[in-house]
Amino acid sequence: MHHSRLAGFIIDCHTDDLERAAEFWSAALGYPLKPKAAEADGTTYRQLMTPPDGLHIEVQRVAHESRVHLDIETDDIEAEVDRLEKLGAKKVAKVKTWVVMEAPTGQRFCVVRPQRPGIEAEANARN
Amino acid sequence: MHHSRLAGFIIDCHTDDLERAAEFWSAALGYPLKPKAAEADGTTYRQLMTPPDGLHIEVQRVAHESRVHLDIETDDIEAEVDRLEKLGAKKVAKVKTWVVMEAPTGQRFCVVRPQRPGIEAEANARN
Repeated sequence: MHHSRLAGFIIDCHTDDLERAAEFWSAALGYPLKPKAAEADGTTYRQLMTPPDGLHIEVQRVAHESRVHLDIETDDIEAEVDRLEKLGAKKVAKVKTWVVMEAPTGQRFCVVRPQRPGIEAEANARN
Repeated sequence: MHHSRLAGFIIDCHTDDLERAAEFWSAALGYPLKPKAAEADGTTYRQLMTPPDGLHIEVQRVAHESRVHLDIETDDIEAEVDRLEKLGAKKVAKVKTWVVMEAPTGQRFCVVRPQRPGIEAEANARN
């Protein structure tokens, strides 16, 4: 038995100026930017401050075209990828700790480790 | 003074089989499909059943490429479009009751009427 749920979404921006892109989306959606962590270089990701029970939202600088992609969080990535493959999704790539997948309708999305607390109690149990 | 906030997102699917696409996303994200309203033809939109305080998520059949787009809800569409234009977004089209816009980083998003209760109390106030 493993668990999974929608973690949130990443706003992929094809830009050289991540800070400016993050400021736009922060103002547009009304979520402040989370201060950069001291150890982070801040050139690839900027997280928006959503409510504690809200979705995880980040603005990401990417080399491909701009888009929005969903993240599914899980306590067992391999089992979740297997479940999604059975539903018709395709595995595209394994990157660091996550897996990029493609839906039958073509959208890319990621299967990621838990991003928020409570996944075992609140998320969907999957056989 | 008007109010706005992230309403949720629409999963745009380039498909002839909306029902199949909706079933995939329902199973992938773990949200049941909302029963079709009697008056709706159900061939363009299928809504997912998210928690009452959660985001509004729909699967939409579209003629353009598949993607995910964000919706911003507001009690004053004209004022919100104006605010977003000042932040650098461009107005693309007015469709029925909503306005399609494009972010400076290229993603399309929509400015829509309130989709969920509580917008005046909970949303961001905008001057």
